[in-house]
Amino acid sequence: MLDPDLAPRHGGALAAASQRYGVAVGEWLDLSTGINPHPYPVPAFPPADFHRLPDPAGLGTLVDVARGAYGVPPASAIAAVPGSDFALRLLPLLCPAGDVAILSPTYSGHAEAWRLAGRTVSAVASLEDGSRRAPIVVVVNPNNPDGRIVEADALVATARTLAARGGVLIVDEAFGDVDPAPGVLPRSAGERIVVLRSFGKFYGLAGLRLGFVVGPDDIVGRLQALVGDWPVSGPAITLGCRALLDTAWQAQTRIRLRATRLRLENCLRASGLDVVGGTDLFVLVDTPRAVPLHEALARLGIWTRIFSDQPGRIRFGVPDEIGLARLEKALAQR
Amino acid sequence: MLDPDLAPRHGGALAAASQRYGVAVGEWLDLSTGINPHPYPVPAFPPADFHRLPDPAGLGTLVDVARGAYGVPPASAIAAVPGSDFALRLLPLLCPAGDVAILSPTYSGHAEAWRLAGRTVSAVASLEDGSRRAPIVVVVNPNNPDGRIVEADALVATARTLAARGGVLIVDEAFGDVDPAPGVLPRSAGERIVVLRSFGKFYGLAGLRLGFVVGPDDIVGRLQALVGDWPVSGPAITLGCRALLDTAWQAQTRIRLRATRLRLENCLRASGLDVVGGTDLFVLVDTPRAVPLHEALARLGIWTRIFSDQPGRIRFGVPDEIGLARLEKALAQR
Repeated sequence: MLDPDLAPRHGGALAAASQRYGVAVGEWLDLSTGINPHPYPVPAFPPADFHRLPDPAGLGTLVDVARGAYGVPPASAIAAVPGSDFALRLLPLLCPAGDVAILSPTYSGHAEAWRLAGRTVSAVASLEDGSRRAPIVVVVNPNNPDGRIVEADALVATARTLAARGGVLIVDEAFGDVDPAPGVLPRSAGERIVVLRSFGKFYGLAGLRLGFVVGPDDIVGRLQALVGDWPVSGPAITLGCRALLDTAWQAQTRIRLRATRLRLENCLRASGLDVVGGTDLFVLVDTPRAVPLHEALARLGIWTRIFSDQPGRIRFGVPDEIGLARLEKALAQR
Repeated sequence: MLDPDLAPRHGGALAAASQRYGVAVGEWLDLSTGINPHPYPVPAFPPADFHRLPDPAGLGTLVDVARGAYGVPPASAIAAVPGSDFALRLLPLLCPAGDVAILSPTYSGHAEAWRLAGRTVSAVASLEDGSRRAPIVVVVNPNNPDGRIVEADALVATARTLAARGGVLIVDEAFGDVDPAPGVLPRSAGERIVVLRSFGKFYGLAGLRLGFVVGPDDIVGRLQALVGDWPVSGPAITLGCRALLDTAWQAQTRIRLRATRLRLENCLRASGLDVVGGTDLFVLVDTPRAVPLHEALARLGIWTRIFSDQPGRIRFGVPDEIGLARLEKALAQR
């Protein structure tokens, strides 16, 4: 395990990085998260978005728009939440009793949330192994940080195995917007599958705190009741409705992110690094020099992600054009 | 009990009111909530507030600023939450087992949250009655909708009685900013008291979703862990830090709200209504004509609050100057 001061819990957290590496907060090229560097445009919000309690009718519209955008089956429940991370932390309070198996390595928040709720958590390498070990299985799909994709067929089969034992499958599709094809939502009707969707990553609006949870009514309907009448902010409702309906922007962004990822991969390979996975929002490199590379780049103001439990890996979020040029120069300079 | 279509669950919800009364959403004078009509100015946010994950250092600053602004004892835990309503819904999952007594009538969200969590809830008329009946007592202070204030001495004494039985006192200070004097926070060190603070009401920014929970580490520390690293949005951190430090604006606003409340009370009394309570953010009227008055005003585009469980009451949020003139005219016109 790496020193947590060296490898922080999460990406971002630039203030602490600035202290450690002497780089001003505004000077960082932040590649430590998988957030779209070409965000959906932030409009001038109607003043009421800040001043008034969010109108239940507006929240209802947002949820309907999300149903359409994500292909949510009509019978499934859906809840808007202040970020999918917040939601995954509430799931242990709402899911059936029992141990939890998490397809690993993956986003650390899942294990943390279940352990906090007193559950026994095991890291597993496959769905089969997971469903043998526990009634609750968690899979991030596509996975963070390696981008591994589990096909919807396999997810549905696993959910049925778990359902027969009173369990449930949790599918975290936080990075699912870059390529909707492997998404399980259109196949999830009537299954014991809970799906998490993040709004902030693909739309480049992680500061807004918006996400969705979809699944059976006995879990997601209860989550919706738990979070109450005003789970998300006025600006989140306005921007969410607009961006989730903007299929032209979405299509253009998918093409742009795909191209950017390829340029990023080429840049990393050109400097001798071994690209082993990723999505169109981040790229994973396996290298025994992950830690010194992370530190060398940090000293040049480029903030990447290393993982305390995966010491031979470094993750790069896709940069914008200026950021890519800066990264190329920095990698040449090392 | 009034028909819920006539008396909605909460204030606000203008879209549904528009449908019922044929008033355009933008035409309403909304007096149905107790939200400051002279909001804290919304700045041009740094783009990073929307684009990046909120930095843990920024959240830390917000929490420190809130500690100072609210007079939180150093040993108490404090959690930033996306609205105090959201937080009160999570409290039943974190508080000790046992029945719950709620000083009533009051904000309906408390009873709803505890019942949803499977607790037995009783409505009580006094703290003494509450602490006889249940180990967990909830008091909104000042109370909504009647403005009743329980002195800090009585709150601390009740908390000690409950603590001796393993219980806890929950004090919802959602309307506590208009007059900090009766606030229990400075007296809460080491006591079994959990205090809820709302940011949106006094600062007129209910759409932002920001609140705080303060109390013993075994409850509020666990809440903080539960809500995770990004419980509130980037704009909420920026605005929260600024507004909670702006003591000049706070002082001016207290004077202004007090004056507005007095003008509102005079206006209501002048039209023969019996003002029976309130805070500097809302005024309560007892009248057997509450429902027809609410409906007559609604048809004139003025949205007030009636309560399904308190049919002889109508609550008016304090209006701005233009709104007061409109209300005066409407009351004269009836």
